[in-house]
Amino acid sequence: MPIFSDRCRKAQTRMHETGIDYLFVSVGSDMFYLTGYSKKPSERLTLFVLPKNGDQSMVTAKFEAARLANVDQFYTVRTWDDAEDPMTILRTLVNPDKKATIGIDDQIWGIFVLRMQSTLPEARFVSAGPVLSQLRIIKDSHEISRLREMGRKMDKVYEKVVKLHFTGSTELDLAEQIQEIVKDQGLKPEYHAGIAGGPNGASPHHSTSDRVMEKSDGVWMELGCGGHVDGYWADKTRSVQVAPSTDTFRKTYEIVREAQQSAFEAIRPGVTCESIDAVGRKIITEAGYGEYFSHRLGHGLGLDIHEPPYIVQGNTMRLQEGMVFSDEPGIYLPGEFGIRIEDIVAVTKDGAERLYDSTHELIVVK
Amino acid sequence: MPIFSDRCRKAQTRMHETGIDYLFVSVGSDMFYLTGYSKKPSERLTLFVLPKNGDQSMVTAKFEAARLANVDQFYTVRTWDDAEDPMTILRTLVNPDKKATIGIDDQIWGIFVLRMQSTLPEARFVSAGPVLSQLRIIKDSHEISRLREMGRKMDKVYEKVVKLHFTGSTELDLAEQIQEIVKDQGLKPEYHAGIAGGPNGASPHHSTSDRVMEKSDGVWMELGCGGHVDGYWADKTRSVQVAPSTDTFRKTYEIVREAQQSAFEAIRPGVTCESIDAVGRKIITEAGYGEYFSHRLGHGLGLDIHEPPYIVQGNTMRLQEGMVFSDEPGIYLPGEFGIRIEDIVAVTKDGAERLYDSTHELIVVK
Repeated sequence: MPIFSDRCRKAQTRMHETGIDYLFVSVGSDMFYLTGYSKKPSERLTLFVLPKNGDQSMVTAKFEAARLANVDQFYTVRTWDDAEDPMTILRTLVNPDKKATIGIDDQIWGIFVLRMQSTLPEARFVSAGPVLSQLRIIKDSHEISRLREMGRKMDKVYEKVVKLHFTGSTELDLAEQIQEIVKDQGLKPEYHAGIAGGPNGASPHHSTSDRVMEKSDGVWMELGCGGHVDGYWADKTRSVQVAPSTDTFRKTYEIVREAQQSAFEAIRPGVTCESIDAVGRKIITEAGYGEYFSHRLGHGLGLDIHEPPYIVQGNTMRLQEGMVFSDEPGIYLPGEFGIRIEDIVAVTKDGAERLYDSTHELIVVK
Repeated sequence: MPIFSDRCRKAQTRMHETGIDYLFVSVGSDMFYLTGYSKKPSERLTLFVLPKNGDQSMVTAKFEAARLANVDQFYTVRTWDDAEDPMTILRTLVNPDKKATIGIDDQIWGIFVLRMQSTLPEARFVSAGPVLSQLRIIKDSHEISRLREMGRKMDKVYEKVVKLHFTGSTELDLAEQIQEIVKDQGLKPEYHAGIAGGPNGASPHHSTSDRVMEKSDGVWMELGCGGHVDGYWADKTRSVQVAPSTDTFRKTYEIVREAQQSAFEAIRPGVTCESIDAVGRKIITEAGYGEYFSHRLGHGLGLDIHEPPYIVQGNTMRLQEGMVFSDEPGIYLPGEFGIRIEDIVAVTKDGAERLYDSTHELIVVK
């Protein structure tokens, strides 16, 4: 699989351009992107060290080195024992008496940052974002077809979810059932679906609860699915109403739908991230609900469920072909309900493609 | 629930003793310990700021503030909007022109550490461990009874697991079935059981695979269960043999069993962590398998699955009543099998209590 060594070469080119001498990449999406290796983060340091020139190393606990047999080892494996300090290995890889600029991955644990800073006191530690996020932000055709494939499965999930019996079920009951539906599609849910019914929906990151669904409840559902299909995530939200439907809900729903569609239509290479947020926000604001759309319009998605580009006011980054992100405006009315419609979209040569394709018509559920 | 404000007061006492002016605690087990609030880590900063004197603050995204309604808010909530930089709030809480020592939690994301360091250039950032780990390392009776309760459930899980049909099943099949058994006990598994059959068992952190169990395979099983019961973890390993049993396996099993038991019997307040590791290791080494026991004897467990105290060579920390950790020696024979026996134990006034109580007799499974 030369894909990983190719990515490392591209990272090295960016390192030369950005003045970064070494990348220190701990377990997580950046390590998976560069090496194909994944494991849960822990207090035992596992670190991929990529110098701008020369030999690459994977630092790992000795007893975990056997796990690396499952991936292409295009680097030197350097092991430490439970009774040793892995920082001593870093001092053999980077001269502690010389100034060096070291880029660290965003999600590396703080305790490692502090230990590295005291182990290599002459080094300057910076974010590896200018190297890694800038590579990861453009998805290649292989990645986009993976994400599209997950999208098709998530579409089928939604088709089945709207046939569930909502009235009288708790949010947690529904989340359990949705988890089974997600599994039936061959996806492995990493977390429970986020479900918010009635007034709970007014909190955009509501934690699924034991509240029972009532007649005419507005309900939003995050049909996410975690990092298991080759490491890529799915993130999809739909809002429905429990029968019987009401005019207020329907009217508000149409505003969110129009905002989501208009933002989608504005996406093309060359426009700024913040301009896409502004398009969706304008529609909601002009309808009088601006203060109830309390979050950004979207976020990038790939090996992380949230990653650049962020579609938010103040982000003047310009869209490029191959960027993938969510389009998810919402309106959250305290004491009443919340509505959010979210698709994942990919920037194409001259516009955008929805990777998810479920209807945006309001569905009234049982 | 004064439990959380009490813990904060205790932390403040330790801050005075250790010269730490502020704690910056991001989402995770430390935040849960101090405030009862939990959420998944993300690129949006949520930070509990505890000064050694004065007002406490929870910094959070504005649209997520509603989630805090579910917990006791004994602090000031300070919100930022998606279009704002949360670092500006930190500059209002800590004078950026003054020297201050700031303790950060071990698992805070590196990107936040770098941003904090540049936002507060006069501050010195250190590990919050001397404050927080030292509080968390001693479990109170409420915590121990929670952990004991989980232990009883994990004991029932093991009783059912040994009745499964191993021969012909894959590791992943078994992991799925074990997940259901764990759920039936009212526990919510956060990850698949780690199962390693035959030669796979030689890798102590083997990733559960589609290898099919064969006759006379040695099998170790990590029957873990994640952070869901009031935030506390369970971690339990047992090793079995698929019928028919063999002399080699049985003989090796007995060595691990004796090591595990002897280490347990050595636990009491006042002895060092490394001495407990040495007791178990000596038995395995004298039996000629020292090089095949490739990890530490144990790790603390509580709100994190791995936390202090670490039962490892070089750790001269002395045990105290209320410490809780794993006793889990193992022997891993390349190309053959692995054996590990793990219980969670609590240090008592004059010895130790096993919080898990399944048999250590070798069970031969179908």
